[in-house]
Amino acid sequence: MSNEMSKGELTRREIVKKAAPLFNRKGYEGTSLSDLMQATGLQKGGIYRHFPSKQQLAGEAFDYSWEKAVSGRLEGVSEVPNSVLRLKKMIDNFVEKREGLVPGGCPLMNTAVESDDGNPLLRARARKALQSWTARLSKITAEGIARHEINPRTKPLELAQLIISSLEGALLLSRLQDSTAPLRNMQHHMHDHLDRSVRS
Amino acid sequence: MSNEMSKGELTRREIVKKAAPLFNRKGYEGTSLSDLMQATGLQKGGIYRHFPSKQQLAGEAFDYSWEKAVSGRLEGVSEVPNSVLRLKKMIDNFVEKREGLVPGGCPLMNTAVESDDGNPLLRARARKALQSWTARLSKITAEGIARHEINPRTKPLELAQLIISSLEGALLLSRLQDSTAPLRNMQHHMHDHLDRSVRS
Repeated sequence: MSNEMSKGELTRREIVKKAAPLFNRKGYEGTSLSDLMQATGLQKGGIYRHFPSKQQLAGEAFDYSWEKAVSGRLEGVSEVPNSVLRLKKMIDNFVEKREGLVPGGCPLMNTAVESDDGNPLLRARARKALQSWTARLSKITAEGIARHEINPRTKPLELAQLIISSLEGALLLSRLQDSTAPLRNMQHHMHDHLDRSVRS
Repeated sequence: MSNEMSKGELTRREIVKKAAPLFNRKGYEGTSLSDLMQATGLQKGGIYRHFPSKQQLAGEAFDYSWEKAVSGRLEGVSEVPNSVLRLKKMIDNFVEKREGLVPGGCPLMNTAVESDDGNPLLRARARKALQSWTARLSKITAEGIARHEINPRTKPLELAQLIISSLEGALLLSRLQDSTAPLRNMQHHMHDHLDRSVRS
């Protein structure tokens, strides 16, 4: 088989792909075994042959959903030459590119909110996701300072946290109100902040 | 009994009070009947005598948790004479007064995230809560414009949404990271925004 995936590996990936929208929409507790059986077309034994537990499957489903989210948010960002414009591009992607994502909203928010009462495996994945997103944004800012595009008083980690907090909060309101207004409003505010206080 | 609550009403309130931290921490799906029985010390029949359904109890538990949250956020706000300082006080309360709340984080965030996959009763309560919080903040801003304390180009609804989004998002990060840094960082950012762009 050399280069090809084994049949077992293909089935495993297919299960993760089909489970991801369930866990992202309904949460870990809200997703039942019968939901998973229906979505995958497999029996209980067929699912548990590939995953030792529901938690393990939920963890891999989170990684799948998060990867889709990150690739949308970062689309085209590295091609933008200026650091401030890179940060803006990432903000614009978050606000505008909401197609092609795993349905159910931001997997980081969903998993963070649900896992804070004792689902340590999922919580650890959400933390790792937040850390890696924070690190990417911090790096853009640090590079911008080094290239004199960004005000040297800017603290890369704080700016990264500010952008992520702002976007996640605005997404929460937009979803609850069924309106893009809170996201658009935040996009405008963050662009303005970058122009006034971050750009050197 | 005239002024006093009936025994039934007292029991009903006690159930709501004991159920509120469960629903706020574990969510609607994650809270089982046996959790509720354990927390209240009642049997199934004793709970369902007072509430027609788990959803109804969860709805009243949400209102209870939300009322605690709102009263913390608004503490002392109306005594502050200047409108910009009122908005700052509300932000400070959100960031600093996190004692005395129903455990489990912001009930609005928890309920918004969990209810977006079809729990219409809870979703309606979360929407109403958001609307009323937005209306309170908008009113402070509108009054500030009328009194020439706030820049007349400020849009009250947009500023209210911006503040709420920012605080909720920062709370999400603070809880996930087990650190007050994202909330403190946002507090500083919002104060700065109010001083630079909102104050007249």
